[in-house]
Amino acid sequence: PKKKKTGYSNRGMTLEEDLNQTNDYYLLRKIAVIHKKPIPIQIVNVDYPSRSAAKITEAYYKKASTTDYNGIYNGYYIDFEAKETRNKTSFPLKNFHDHQLSHMEACVDQGGICFIVVRFSTLDKVFVLDFSVLKKWWDQQFEEKGKKSIPYSVFEKDGYELPYSLAPRLPYLTIVDQLIVNRDL
Amino acid sequence: PKKKKTGYSNRGMTLEEDLNQTNDYYLLRKIAVIHKKPIPIQIVNVDYPSRSAAKITEAYYKKASTTDYNGIYNGYYIDFEAKETRNKTSFPLKNFHDHQLSHMEACVDQGGICFIVVRFSTLDKVFVLDFSVLKKWWDQQFEEKGKKSIPYSVFEKDGYELPYSLAPRLPYLTIVDQLIVNRDL
Ligand SMILES: [Mg+2]
Ligand SMILES: [Mg+2]
Repeated sequence: PKKKKTGYSNRGMTLEEDLNQTNDYYLLRKIAVIHKKPIPIQIVNVDYPSRSAAKITEAYYKKASTTDYNGIYNGYYIDFEAKETRNKTSFPLKNFHDHQLSHMEACVDQGGICFIVVRFSTLDKVFVLDFSVLKKWWDQQFEEKGKKSIPYSVFEKDGYELPYSLAPRLPYLTIVDQLIVNRDL
Repeated sequence: PKKKKTGYSNRGMTLEEDLNQTNDYYLLRKIAVIHKKPIPIQIVNVDYPSRSAAKITEAYYKKASTTDYNGIYNGYYIDFEAKETRNKTSFPLKNFHDHQLSHMEACVDQGGICFIVVRFSTLDKVFVLDFSVLKKWWDQQFEEKGKKSIPYSVFEKDGYELPYSLAPRLPYLTIVDQLIVNRDL
């Protein structure tokens, strides 16, 4: 028989839905103001039917030059990217673009708190990984015999597991508090 | 004869173009990381033609719940809205939504620096107005005999004129430095 699960799990919601719900919780309770950015779109054609809303009839997805989420928490600038993978043993680095790494590095240089939230959906596990760890793994891929992915064990060892909870769903700011402590050590 | 203009003017670019160029300048010189957010869109239908990019064939504009621009500057969270008006004597408050005011207020509560950048395009003048001033004028509109717009004289007296320059086009961070000083007094 299946092992009975303890605690909360993701219950079929996407990582993005869980994070948006978490951010709503933080906003409502005046804990933080963090939003998902809209998806960047290149609009090519718009119709203006009389008496109704403008209708976009031709548009294309653009590559994001920044990350999914940003905002402010207790005076700190927060910036992160959220990703899901069905892999069980590692997280493929091709999930990120050069631009996103440069963006996060520039934010860290300005004093921001940057990280990634990764869900291993098959394992039902979510981790937070500080930008410094991501950056180390990103850079090694270009070396001789560099790995093209971050092993799961790195998330366990150098990341923080983010357990599901009732409210908020994914209380990632608890881990952000830790990232801030580590940085200011 | 027309009075000869001194200094730089907007040269037919929109305020958004001027600000984006300014932000590129700041990013390149590692002065700040501030981006315009993508326009929020509700996507209804997408075609996936073989061998070409996904094409969005039906989508609608959504009302923005936050502001145009945000990012980080020297450890400070920066959040602002940019607006143009052809009015010469005042700036109509209907240019803002409730949601945008609440958003800026929440950011200020978290320690962020929030303001608006307003261009009076007919006068070729740009001003920065701190959120605290906007908020005062926003609130008075609901009082008896409240004004529905912010008089131009308020921008001159309680705002900061933002002169055009060669590079960056609109050096608004010089004024942000002043807003930070004022706040921390
Ligand atoms: Mg993502
Ligand atoms: Mg605007």
